[in-house]
Amino acid sequence: MKDVFDYIDAHRQEFIERLQWLCRQPSIAAQNVGIRETAQMVAQLMEQIGVRPELYSTDGAPVIYGAVGNHSKTLLIYNHYDVQPPEPVEEWHSPPFAAEIRDGKLFARGAYDNKGHLVARLCAVEAWLRTRGALPLTVHFVMEGEEEVSSLHLHQFVRTHRDLVQADGCLWESGSKDIQENPMVYMGAKGILYLELEAHGANRDLHSSVATIVPNPAWRLVWALSTFKDRHENILIDGFSDDVAEPTAEEVEHLRRLAAGGNDDLRRRDLGIDQFLLGVTGIQLVKRNLFQPTCTICGFVSGYTGPGSKTVLPSQATAKIDFRLVPNQRPEDILDKVKRHLAQHGFADIQVRVLGMEHPARTPVDSPVAKAVVQTAKEIYGRDPLVFPLMPATGPMHELTAQFGIPTVGTGCGYAHSNGHAPDEHIRLDDFFQHMKHVALLLERFASADVPRASAS
Amino acid sequence: MKDVFDYIDAHRQEFIERLQWLCRQPSIAAQNVGIRETAQMVAQLMEQIGVRPELYSTDGAPVIYGAVGNHSKTLLIYNHYDVQPPEPVEEWHSPPFAAEIRDGKLFARGAYDNKGHLVARLCAVEAWLRTRGALPLTVHFVMEGEEEVSSLHLHQFVRTHRDLVQADGCLWESGSKDIQENPMVYMGAKGILYLELEAHGANRDLHSSVATIVPNPAWRLVWALSTFKDRHENILIDGFSDDVAEPTAEEVEHLRRLAAGGNDDLRRRDLGIDQFLLGVTGIQLVKRNLFQPTCTICGFVSGYTGPGSKTVLPSQATAKIDFRLVPNQRPEDILDKVKRHLAQHGFADIQVRVLGMEHPARTPVDSPVAKAVVQTAKEIYGRDPLVFPLMPATGPMHELTAQFGIPTVGTGCGYAHSNGHAPDEHIRLDDFFQHMKHVALLLERFASADVPRASAS
Repeated sequence: MKDVFDYIDAHRQEFIERLQWLCRQPSIAAQNVGIRETAQMVAQLMEQIGVRPELYSTDGAPVIYGAVGNHSKTLLIYNHYDVQPPEPVEEWHSPPFAAEIRDGKLFARGAYDNKGHLVARLCAVEAWLRTRGALPLTVHFVMEGEEEVSSLHLHQFVRTHRDLVQADGCLWESGSKDIQENPMVYMGAKGILYLELEAHGANRDLHSSVATIVPNPAWRLVWALSTFKDRHENILIDGFSDDVAEPTAEEVEHLRRLAAGGNDDLRRRDLGIDQFLLGVTGIQLVKRNLFQPTCTICGFVSGYTGPGSKTVLPSQATAKIDFRLVPNQRPEDILDKVKRHLAQHGFADIQVRVLGMEHPARTPVDSPVAKAVVQTAKEIYGRDPLVFPLMPATGPMHELTAQFGIPTVGTGCGYAHSNGHAPDEHIRLDDFFQHMKHVALLLERFASADVPRASAS
Repeated sequence: MKDVFDYIDAHRQEFIERLQWLCRQPSIAAQNVGIRETAQMVAQLMEQIGVRPELYSTDGAPVIYGAVGNHSKTLLIYNHYDVQPPEPVEEWHSPPFAAEIRDGKLFARGAYDNKGHLVARLCAVEAWLRTRGALPLTVHFVMEGEEEVSSLHLHQFVRTHRDLVQADGCLWESGSKDIQENPMVYMGAKGILYLELEAHGANRDLHSSVATIVPNPAWRLVWALSTFKDRHENILIDGFSDDVAEPTAEEVEHLRRLAAGGNDDLRRRDLGIDQFLLGVTGIQLVKRNLFQPTCTICGFVSGYTGPGSKTVLPSQATAKIDFRLVPNQRPEDILDKVKRHLAQHGFADIQVRVLGMEHPARTPVDSPVAKAVVQTAKEIYGRDPLVFPLMPATGPMHELTAQFGIPTVGTGCGYAHSNGHAPDEHIRLDDFFQHMKHVALLLERFASADVPRASAS
């Protein structure tokens, strides 16, 4: 692989500039900012490496598809070009779309999630094509633009183009190193139900002196939420945990290894917290993070939130709630249960808006693509990667691959301080190039791996 | 009084422009915006009507004082030149500091609360001085700049200049007409304890996938608040209501009259609510509004509050809570009880910041100044005013007058839709001039009223 790696080393500056160029274009799915422009730029990047881009329109963001190679062995590579909102912008040390480089790190909303990965993988394929003239296997790129809003319309592409996504394995969008610099490899993903709850009071904000006699929607929402989850983290929505599957024996074995390799104290101190939630440590900490569903207040706003005091009775209160779901919970079912819960607890007045739904996905830990990723990670990073049987985050894995039985595995160029979804998101450029080489090596190894033809490709 | 009233009528346009000029200068105490500039402008207005302004500095906003007249009978007139924050600015139909006039209404933050009153009263004195050459009594103006932040430093002025505030009666800052256009007259004021509560989680916002293991400050704050007050509006803070005094027989008689004169349904429909809090009506509604203390969420913010979804675990959550206190509750005592409550319920981690404290104030319903205000209101408005034995809102009445036994009464130029503390705050210009004439007439009547020399002036 020396020729391919040398090509990568020789083009560092060019590849960095390519990533900066893409990061400087905002593509905020939640706010419908710059999505179409970014799709065109991604298509342009694909063309640049010698792969013909195909844009598939949906009712939301277009899906960019590209196929390269002429082999029956096929690797699907999934990425997304949309990013999270940059807010709170004032907490960034450089503007979120400036793509500033400081100390060998590229800071931008989307640098880690997911443009760094998207660009690194395109560059890995370019390195192969320019040095060897062809790939050793077929690669199908699927790049969507709504991952950060629960992949709202990806299913429209998948359902009408099943043939395009069939593969022997899938390289999932991203991955990271842990705080001890161990590379992490993920199988499976949690599902999600993202809701916006809204309570209303009077038809306008009022002087708070009438709070004696006019309902306060902020109180309504606080009371309603306090019935969702108690202080001991028990989710109180009737039937919420009915379909939660315990990890398999094999998965527990991986949890054990993860716990043995982890350093809870280091992680805890890094986050500036006295203890993890409920004081869990060791394997319980790992198990909770991977196999526990959540009910999280991601946002709450009502009334006056500026500096100092304002005596106002708010007319509206809004909360954003994210339920991360584990196998075999189903978002539609949880939505029904949340609505029923609100009605039964006297909160039928609270409006529920669905902002996203995704099924959890399980994918085997010992598939050929998983083995190839783990083996090549060891070679590139010089140490055994940590294998996560389920990813604590969410993605359209059920929709894109798991429902077709395509083994799927995530790995990538993040590290413990990449700040995904948070201010000062960034990647280290060294990680960017390591991941690029990792993917280049994976193409070679997976090409020669023995793969049973289980999927319907 | 024809000469004085004619003067007012002849100077309508000039007085409106004076009010616009003052309203166009922001003076947001909570954000420390424009306070000193506005103090200078108020001093200039005072000079313009022929009263020498004296600026008394405090550790906060300066107090502007002016004395005019050479009689022993003295009326203290209290106003403030600061305003509430204009947020949410996007809900205004004209910019909050444009002072735009539409349909005979002047729209501006502060138009009603309290610049309209401040200017109307100065103009009433001008009308007297220009037509008669002198006032029939002595007027002391006290205009402060921190009323909207619980008059944080007014006590510094009062304690060092007790002599300047002594009077036979006090005309309080403002007043309004009810939804049936009845003028309202207020005695007494609620107290306030305004707190900011803050909960902290990790040292930075995180991807919400770690909500399984990292504490969420938004949940902490929701749980803590849910222990403050239950859904039936019972305030659960131990000892909170210990010092709540029941209304006297005379006050109950006024409540009865208010209930008889009110139109609950009209008010309810105007606010767009199905029922008042807890379904109260009639005298219970009036009593609750005047004699019930409150615990109000005036603001709550945490995490992502923009459009669409963002899967973030917030690192901080902040709530602004306003406790309106009734006689004989004391803000210092309630603060102790809130802190003790948080500690006892396992929320010692939640930080408590005091943003304002004021004592409630009671002042007699049948004082000479009250009688003079009621009688002159009848003459100006052509109907009996509604007399409120306690004001549901708050002001530094204890500090400025009640502690010295100075009878105090509020009346003014607002109406049911003046939107104090809310977007599209405004006054009707006709109300502005009616109030001006009311004050001019009050000066004459109170000058000749029989006043026992109870106060230490």
